[in-house]
This record gives sequence, C-alpha cells and structure tokens, in this order.
Amino acid sequence: MSQPNYSLTVRATIPARVGMLGRVMAAIGDAGGQVGGVDIVRSGKESVTRDIAVYARDEAHGAEVTRAVGGVEGVTVESSVDRVFLAHAGGKVGMQNRVPVATRDDLSMAYTPGVARVCMAIHHDFEQAWEYTIKGNSVMVVSDGSSVVGQGDLGPEASLPALEAKAALLRRLAAIDAFPLPVDLRDPAEIAEAVVLCSSVFAGIHLSDIAAPRCFEVQRLIQERLDIPVFHEDQQGTAAAVLAALTNGLGIVGTPLSEATVVVAGLGPGGQAVVRLLVAAGVGTVVACDSKGAVHAGRGDLDDEGLTWIAENTNAAGLSGPVTEVLAGAHAFVGLSAPGLLSADAVRAMAPDPVVLALAMPDPELLPEEAAGVARVYATGRPDVPNQINSGLASPGIWRGALDCRATEINVEMTLAAAEAIAATAAEDGGVSEVNVVPSIFSQRLVPNVAAAVRAAAERTGVARITAGAAAPTS
Amino acid sequence: MSQPNYSLTVRATIPARVGMLGRVMAAIGDAGGQVGGVDIVRSGKESVTRDIAVYARDEAHGAEVTRAVGGVEGVTVESSVDRVFLAHAGGKVGMQNRVPVATRDDLSMAYTPGVARVCMAIHHDFEQAWEYTIKGNSVMVVSDGSSVVGQGDLGPEASLPALEAKAALLRRLAAIDAFPLPVDLRDPAEIAEAVVLCSSVFAGIHLSDIAAPRCFEVQRLIQERLDIPVFHEDQQGTAAAVLAALTNGLGIVGTPLSEATVVVAGLGPGGQAVVRLLVAAGVGTVVACDSKGAVHAGRGDLDDEGLTWIAENTNAAGLSGPVTEVLAGAHAFVGLSAPGLLSADAVRAMAPDPVVLALAMPDPELLPEEAAGVARVYATGRPDVPNQINSGLASPGIWRGALDCRATEINVEMTLAAAEAIAATAAEDGGVSEVNVVPSIFSQRLVPNVAAAVRAAAERTGVARITAGAAAPTS
Repeated sequence: MSQPNYSLTVRATIPARVGMLGRVMAAIGDAGGQVGGVDIVRSGKESVTRDIAVYARDEAHGAEVTRAVGGVEGVTVESSVDRVFLAHAGGKVGMQNRVPVATRDDLSMAYTPGVARVCMAIHHDFEQAWEYTIKGNSVMVVSDGSSVVGQGDLGPEASLPALEAKAALLRRLAAIDAFPLPVDLRDPAEIAEAVVLCSSVFAGIHLSDIAAPRCFEVQRLIQERLDIPVFHEDQQGTAAAVLAALTNGLGIVGTPLSEATVVVAGLGPGGQAVVRLLVAAGVGTVVACDSKGAVHAGRGDLDDEGLTWIAENTNAAGLSGPVTEVLAGAHAFVGLSAPGLLSADAVRAMAPDPVVLALAMPDPELLPEEAAGVARVYATGRPDVPNQINSGLASPGIWRGALDCRATEINVEMTLAAAEAIAATAAEDGGVSEVNVVPSIFSQRLVPNVAAAVRAAAERTGVARITAGAAAPTS
Repeated sequence: MSQPNYSLTVRATIPARVGMLGRVMAAIGDAGGQVGGVDIVRSGKESVTRDIAVYARDEAHGAEVTRAVGGVEGVTVESSVDRVFLAHAGGKVGMQNRVPVATRDDLSMAYTPGVARVCMAIHHDFEQAWEYTIKGNSVMVVSDGSSVVGQGDLGPEASLPALEAKAALLRRLAAIDAFPLPVDLRDPAEIAEAVVLCSSVFAGIHLSDIAAPRCFEVQRLIQERLDIPVFHEDQQGTAAAVLAALTNGLGIVGTPLSEATVVVAGLGPGGQAVVRLLVAAGVGTVVACDSKGAVHAGRGDLDDEGLTWIAENTNAAGLSGPVTEVLAGAHAFVGLSAPGLLSADAVRAMAPDPVVLALAMPDPELLPEEAAGVARVYATGRPDVPNQINSGLASPGIWRGALDCRATEINVEMTLAAAEAIAATAAEDGGVSEVNVVPSIFSQRLVPNVAAAVRAAAERTGVARITAGAAAPTS
C-alpha cells in the first residue's frame, strides 16, 4: 500500500463524542483502507467536520471505504474526492514575475519607454536575447498527444497534465522555466514547422509523449533547423538512466561493460535509444528484441531506419529467436516492453548474478516477488521497490547543463556524461549496492553532478556557446 | 527629470574620507545628473565602493555624468551600467510550481501513475482541462514583431522584452499566467494557423505589437477558428481606455457623449478601434482623420475594409480637409497619430472647454506647455503629466473578467463595460477632475471593477461558459 495508486479525501461530520473518531478509523481499516492525514475543517459543540485522507486500491475500493465511513452511526459523509484530481485543480505550474512592477518608475524601466532600448539592442544583435530576455532559461515541453503516459493516443489537450508535470519537475529540480505546449498536429513535418516557428523564446525543445516512429523524425527535423537542443526525454533521458543503472549493476557483479552481453527487449523510443547509447558506451554485446524476437541482419522485416541501424550495429553473432531464448547466458536484461514478459526460469538461464532492469509500466516484465533470489540486481520503474529507474533521473540535470553553456544540441557525449554522473551520484549517496544502483530523483547532488558533467562534455565537443565562468541565470 | 528616460548605475570606489561622497554627489549634479539611491557594495578602511543610481537625459549625457564622477580626485569608476538593461537581465518573468514536488508521494500524484487518470479524464471530456490544467488562467501573448513598441518592424525576437513586459503586467495586476510567444511569420493566415495549432493550453490569445492592417486580419482569422477570446491590446485595450477618458472628460464639461463631436486623428489599429468603439458607445458625431485628412464617403482612396466601414458609419456631414480644419467647433480630440500634429491655435478653434487626448508616443500631438490654459482637459500617454492613458488601464481587468467566466470572445459590449468601469473607478479614486479623468494603472479598485463589469457583460451577451459563483482560479 506504499504506492498510493488511488487516494481520496473523505469529508465527514462526526458527532463530538469520545470514541467516535476511533470508530470511523476502525471502519476505514475494516474496509481495507489506510488512513493518511486527518484535518479539522469545522469544529462545533455537537459535531466536528474532518478531512480524512484515505489510501485505497482503486476507485471502486475508494467508494467502498467511503460507504463504510457513512455507515458509522451518527456520521455524515459530506464529500469524497479523488486526491489526485485535487492536486491537479487549476494546474500545476504558473508564471511569476522576476522584476518589480509596482510603481511608474518600475514601469518605465520594464515597459515603455525603457523597454524600447532593449528591443532595439536585440534587433541589432540577436545574441543579446540570451542576456536580456527569458530565453536563456526557457524550455518548450511539447507533445502531439500521440503517446500520453503509456495510455496511447489521447490527443494534445489530454497531454497537458503530463507536460505540466514535466515542467514542474524541471522547475523544482533544476530551476528551469519550462512551458507546456501541446500542438494539435500529427504530421512530423508539420509538428516540426510549428515548433520551429514558435521557438524564438526558448533555449531548448523538450519532446515528450510522442509516439514512435514519428518521434524520431520530429526530433531530426527540428534539430536540423534550430541551433538549440531538441531533446526527447523518452529517448535520451531513459537511455542515460538505464546506462547508469547498468554501469553500477554490472559493477557490483564485476563484469566490465566492454565484456557484458546485454539483451534489450522493447524497441519503442526508449528501447531504441537505450540500444544506441549502449553501443556508444562500448558495451560488449548488445542484442535487441522486439515483439518478433531478436533483431539481426537476416531478418526480412526491418523496414525502418531505426531497426536497420540496430541490425547493422548489434548482435554480431546473428542470434535469432524470442527474448527468452537469446537471454540465455546474458549478463543483463533491459526491459522496456510489456508486463510479465519474463519468467524466473528465463532469468535463471542467464549468466550467474544477472542484472534485470524490468522497466515496463505500470507493471514490470518480471514481478518483484519472482525476481527475489533469482536476479542479483533488480530494478523497475516503480516507486515502491528499491532502484526506481526513469528518465527523470537524467532530464533535469541534462537540461541544466545544456542551458548553463547555451548548448546548440544535446549530443551522445553529453548523454554518456550524464549516465556516468548519475552512476557516480549513487556511489556518493550511500554507496552502490544491490538496492542502490541509481540515486533518488530528489538527491541533492544529482542535478549539480549531471549538469557539470553535461556542460563539460558540451564544451569538449564544441556545442557550447559559452564556457564555464559565464553562467546563465538559474534562480 | 521625473521621467527616467535614461538612468544608470555608476559603481565607484571612493576614498573613505569625510566629505568625499558629497564631492561625488556635487560632481553628478554639476554635470546635470540627478542622484537616485546610493548603496554600499564593499566597505574598507581606505575606501568605500558604492552603487550610485543616476538619472540622465540620454546615453551621451549618462557617459558625461560618469566621466564627471571619475574626475573627482581619488575616485575610481568601476563600472557604469544602463539600469534598464540591468532590470531586463535574465528576463522579467518565469515559471513557478503550484504543487509540491518534494517526495515520491507528491510525484505519484502530480506525475505517474496519478497523472494518467487526469489525462484520461480530459481525453473523455475536454472541458475538464479548464478544471485540472493551467488552461483556465493562461494567455498567449503573441507578436510577429512587425510593430514593436512604436519602433517598427524589429522581428519576432526583438519583440520579446515587450511581450514579457505585458506578461509581467498581467501577472502583477490581474494574477494571470501570460506566456510571451513571438512567432516567426508575417502572413496573416500563417500566423493564425500557428496560433491556433498551439492554442490548446490557453484560455485566451493576446495579440500585441502587430502592424496594421495585418493585425485586423490576424485577429479575425484566429477568432473564427477558436472558442477563446482573441484580444488585440493595441485595439480594444486602447479604445476602452480612451472611451473612459472621454466619458469623464466630457462629463466635466457637461457635454453628453450623445451630443459630442469627437475628432480622431491617426487610423492605425488603435485609432480605428477607438472610432468603432465611439460609434458603438453612441457618440453624437465622430470624424476620423488619417494623414490625408477626414475620412468621408466621397474620398476615392478608401481601399480597405476598415476605412470603408469608417466612411459609412461616421462623419454623416461629409466633412473633408485636414485635421486642424475639421477640428473647428469639436468638443474633443483624440490623437493616436504623430508628435506635434496640433497647434494651440487649432485647439482654440474647438468648442469651449475642449478635451484633448494627445496620445502619440513618445511625444504627444500637443505638448503640455502648449496645452496649458487652452485645453480644459488634457491627457497624454506619458507618465510625467497627469492623466496617463494607455491600454494597460483596460487589458488586465478585461482579461480577468473574461477568464473568470471562461468567455468565448471579448465582444464590444464587454469593451464598453470595461470603459465604463475605468471611468467609474476614477470617480471612486479621489473623484473625477481635470487632472484625474482616468485612475492610476495601480489603483487597487481598477482591475476588480473592470473584471466584474466585463464578466457581467459577457454573461449578459451569452459568451460566458460559466456564470458567477463558479470562479476560475486566480491565485
């Protein structure tokens, strides 16, 4: 019950008599609910109205718990509200002012007539926009709504809560001003066109929740036309987090990356990006599988650029067959596929002390209870077991580093540097172990470490507009 | 010197001896500068480093004052920086979070897995976006950079400081989340297309700094396709502020609007919008003039829709000739044209006690010193004389009212209601007089008054999605 998949706030008016609150608590417990915080809304002589936070399994269970509260003699339920919806009411982000606008003098500086001089300065030298506007710290979080948090094609409007969440995370963890901007388009060229035309105010484009293979083309088309980074969290962010976990996981086992065999299952945006980054990192053998099994040069159905590249650059031995077959003898498994894909037996057939990253959401390829005693290192995307791996480990620090040096792109060297820094942060934060292959997303060291590494890689590879010492605003 | 057209911060290291700071102050005064605040940066045994804010006439004068400071024996000038640029450094607005993102529990509510339920709810019923995303309080501040703060076509990037200023004002005065979004396009249909495609997250479109006649078509094309308001500040905002000033100005004189003759000079976006609103308000006689003189049905050069409409709906007497000629006998003049257009003699030929709104920027059609003793009521767009009239009096309250009722458009009735509320606020704030025909933009009553009037007009005319009692978030 530590993962509050569904929680609700029950507002109940309870007789002001000794023992009544206890009876309500007992009723919730008997119905299988777990009580969180309890607040007083109104207090009277006869009765007290309270907001009771309750964790339940799902919506139906929440209704059941609410009925149990109402069933206690003398108690009236005033309302019962899904806490997730309460948390989203009015949206999760907003604007704030960075300058005072309280007097005419303020206005004459921030607005007319003063602003005209700043506009003219930018007109004469566009680079001034980095200094005197919000551009330097602004990121567009953009989606077409075609693949919204694993729920499929819900449309641009429905992607908004997810885009706001990413903006809120970037703000909280890396002091970045990210604005959610769904676009009502599906053609990659048209999406790219719209993003490019609206890009003046941004220092970076953060693609999110866009379906494959469209996402690859969208990213390429935008990056070709802009000299600011175009980052696809589901690709580069996921890949950096996975490589960090593999680095530390294989480190525990004592297998160098260069000698490891890693099987990747699931070749959506995340899976393909993981494969490309593992190859770039020099992993010994990578075998990539989609629903038709291992990708190899002999397969006749490699009808897209991504799979063709994978066939040419991985699986040199030409292994074929389903995941469970090619997994035999492998050191590590990375799943970005479907719940329940793996059995404990398949893991037992891997090399000794296997590393299993079962990242399918909401349920992993191999359940925690099946992994126990079979996988040496086990990680998922879930928050309720150790080793939660997701793109959020990488994205805030990557963006902070890219913005600090006004990078023109986020290249593979920067992504590799991010992975190394994430892995190193786990070592700093309590040490690497079977239950700590990645740091917490809230680690105080994580974003500064990743940002510094990414910035250094950007400078080294010549994609930084400015070099250390002239930092961009981060407040 | 109360209008700080140019101010600078001089950082100077001054010997720590009695009388030295006084000598520096004297040097600034002798050079014609005026000292604002003085702060200590570093204090040592031998010397004190101070930041001295100085008001000067212009950049050259600022340099002269800086040299004067450096000329004081023993004083070293460390830097001299334009304060306007300092105020704009890093931009004037940014993002903030509205929900905590500090724990895994927060994340599971604001982000996965909780967010998926909110996304699905919006997918099934788009109206839910008004409740559970930032949409309800978000406005796009958009420009193509074709007419940036009166400086002409500077390009989209150069419009950013101006758009940020508008966003900061909307945030400060009306708690609206406005995001600056320049678009790199010039064709009205293409601008409209880009705005429509990016509009999912917004409850309104605020057009700004777009040249005429393009701005009219852009507004029309967008409004045809969206069910949220498309507001052009330079048109509707200016018109509401002008009508408010005329209402109070003519009220002082005792001439009812329905019997007044008003001459409008300058038929850019603001001038045309003023003419249309005066006609809608039932002003007795409106005569509109462009650079070729009064617009009348007999003129052969009325080659656009706007001027044709004006010819058909104003100047029933068919007056022709230059502004100064048709002004004879008029009760009021509204200038949105060019500096120095009017002479005191032309104003003397108006009806007794004339109302002169000389709103050309940066210098009015008639200078304050020429207006004294000639115009009964005199107003400009400048902050350094009484009666500062600009669109900022109207826009924040109009948007607050429109967003509070989730309006589908901002119609003429709403704009008229805004004008009435602005006029009434001047009466509440110290009473209407020759030097108080409009309230201060910082009046505490202004935005609530305008918002309430605009919302009521929206409900009355059937363009409000929700009626009073179900307010949108305003925090």
